[in-house]
Amino acid sequence: MRNFNFVNPTRIIFGQGTIKRLGMELSNDGIKRALLVYGQGSVFRNGVYEQVTASLNQAGIDFAELPGVKPNPVLSKVKAGIELAREYKAEAVLAAGGGSVFDSAKIIAAGYHYPGDVWDFFTGAARIKQALPIYGVLTISGTGSEMNCNAVLTREDERKKWGLGSRHLYPRLSIIDPSVQGTLPAQNTAEGAADMITHILEYYFDGSTDIDIMREYMEGLIRTIMQQVVKVLRDPADYQARAQLAWAGTLAFNGSTAPGTRGGDWATHGMEHSLSAFYSVAHGAGLAILLPVWMRYVYRNDVETFERFAEKVFGIKDLQGDSLAMAGIDALKEFFVSLNLPARLREIGVEAADLEAMADNAVLKGPLGVLQKLEHEDVLKIYQQAW
Amino acid sequence: MRNFNFVNPTRIIFGQGTIKRLGMELSNDGIKRALLVYGQGSVFRNGVYEQVTASLNQAGIDFAELPGVKPNPVLSKVKAGIELAREYKAEAVLAAGGGSVFDSAKIIAAGYHYPGDVWDFFTGAARIKQALPIYGVLTISGTGSEMNCNAVLTREDERKKWGLGSRHLYPRLSIIDPSVQGTLPAQNTAEGAADMITHILEYYFDGSTDIDIMREYMEGLIRTIMQQVVKVLRDPADYQARAQLAWAGTLAFNGSTAPGTRGGDWATHGMEHSLSAFYSVAHGAGLAILLPVWMRYVYRNDVETFERFAEKVFGIKDLQGDSLAMAGIDALKEFFVSLNLPARLREIGVEAADLEAMADNAVLKGPLGVLQKLEHEDVLKIYQQAW
Repeated sequence: MRNFNFVNPTRIIFGQGTIKRLGMELSNDGIKRALLVYGQGSVFRNGVYEQVTASLNQAGIDFAELPGVKPNPVLSKVKAGIELAREYKAEAVLAAGGGSVFDSAKIIAAGYHYPGDVWDFFTGAARIKQALPIYGVLTISGTGSEMNCNAVLTREDERKKWGLGSRHLYPRLSIIDPSVQGTLPAQNTAEGAADMITHILEYYFDGSTDIDIMREYMEGLIRTIMQQVVKVLRDPADYQARAQLAWAGTLAFNGSTAPGTRGGDWATHGMEHSLSAFYSVAHGAGLAILLPVWMRYVYRNDVETFERFAEKVFGIKDLQGDSLAMAGIDALKEFFVSLNLPARLREIGVEAADLEAMADNAVLKGPLGVLQKLEHEDVLKIYQQAW
Repeated sequence: MRNFNFVNPTRIIFGQGTIKRLGMELSNDGIKRALLVYGQGSVFRNGVYEQVTASLNQAGIDFAELPGVKPNPVLSKVKAGIELAREYKAEAVLAAGGGSVFDSAKIIAAGYHYPGDVWDFFTGAARIKQALPIYGVLTISGTGSEMNCNAVLTREDERKKWGLGSRHLYPRLSIIDPSVQGTLPAQNTAEGAADMITHILEYYFDGSTDIDIMREYMEGLIRTIMQQVVKVLRDPADYQARAQLAWAGTLAFNGSTAPGTRGGDWATHGMEHSLSAFYSVAHGAGLAILLPVWMRYVYRNDVETFERFAEKVFGIKDLQGDSLAMAGIDALKEFFVSLNLPARLREIGVEAADLEAMADNAVLKGPLGVLQKLEHEDVLKIYQQAW
């Protein structure tokens, strides 16, 4: 185990029927005016908008609304949100949605006090020094944004989808009511599960040593996600499976898998971000395609851990070395395909002619990854193999 | 999964050579005067006293000292600490030690502002409404007090060893440098491991349903603790094993095993507390004796989970039902014995004539347990079987 610092101050209220507590919680924290951020309408279909606004009204919390946040959220929308928050003199930003909405809310909260362009936070030209308090009601599990300090945003004009982390971006409170996810399309549920598994494997395969304690934890999480997502897809109304999947998604990327590791590899996320900056691809779908290809490309750097993965997660026996490692990777790929996630980049409309530019874009900030540093040529090969 | 709330605001700095950061951390938080609480001298032998005071001096933090906290810490010592903290006008309480020192520091911090008798917090006559900031440097892993909001104290005159929890009692910061545990006697290391395993099993066997995600996590933690404590006892200088054991001990009782459960059974802890109130028994040793006996007494309430425990933690196959459940309990007992932990109450000097009074004392606040409510007669039987 490497030395580490750990803290996660986010408060979680979890379970069926808990959204009604939102207004009271804001009120107890002294919040009187909030900016309510949401997406493209699912909050109306799943009843979350109604529950949230009823709770705010009952507690006497005023709110302005920023609807229309898209998947792969964009800088322009966040800037509009910052303007609105300032005009309205919002005292908090309240996300009602999935990762895109949470990430947008976080950057709005950080941008409120910052006179410059919030893209500066992503380029490193400026650091986040304060943020409005962030609250959230989660409507789709996957990104883990409800309990972490990270945000990813797309700058459309430059095709940059970049991420950042700041201790000021932990939500103060997130409410996770898994029952509102009962109406999610199967595809979104599957994409969420792929995102969760990728978050875990970014840490699992970062070349760390002496982290058996973390490997046990991560293997248990992945087995849970695999079991429960299959149950949820079979019966979307299975609350208990949905609840376990939701909590696994939060744990998968709330910092709890990081202690003692090298901090995660993140090459797969980097490659997916470049992909999503070019094509309107769901993050989880892009990850499901790229992750197994990345695994095959790099596994020789740590065969032992890839063997362990095959044994502990998929129960593969009677193989060893490269064969065992590859069998685990193949099993993961098959699992993603069994969830009806796309298998190849060309299936989701990616043009082979764009791969070169996507690779350029992916390494703009330098080579990707920790287990193996991926230069432009490596990334291009992975894209080609994934195509 | 049941609905739950989760938060844990404690910040952790973990790893070799991290104690030197203590003074700077207090200074950054604006602390100028602290009460330094420690035990009966191990902090001199393991070098922690020297490291802590050097760091405080370097950062210009003044401190007063309260040495001499005993295992199974007592109310009178805490009261002396509160007096000293007030006289000294301490702005924080700093624990340097194990669970006893942390628990004492917590109640001193809470008592500082309370004009009455702090025992009121334990009887329920008063609630903790504020506390001085609590900092800590951990010297023995086991109780988890370094990252939770609980404290246990013994009122000597009434032979009451009672616990409490309050959100004001989370340490603001705990430093865990596993390398300072390299000089611990084997017995203390083993007792710490028994305490960790019991913390986990209090939640594991509380009769919860639909918590596969938590069971996976808890099983992984127990397997880790078992593997790593054996390594540590074989080679006390094995830093990596010591580090994994230390982090497992923190996770075992920092709230992370609780989500979705019924909140833990806690009958075993209740019975051990009454035992420790009568005899000067190490908490972990008492637990190692009582836990397997309790398991045999109650397993029929949830045979399925006891079967799962036997399979997942000890890899027992080819059995089922009661035989499988019992084989798991026997394996745990054998494991404790293999760590040279005591097997029976009579081995640690308990008089059979005291069992009745210990049972009276154990149920003073009402029956114990959740999986099965234990009345006086049940507790007496368990003590007798453990004797």
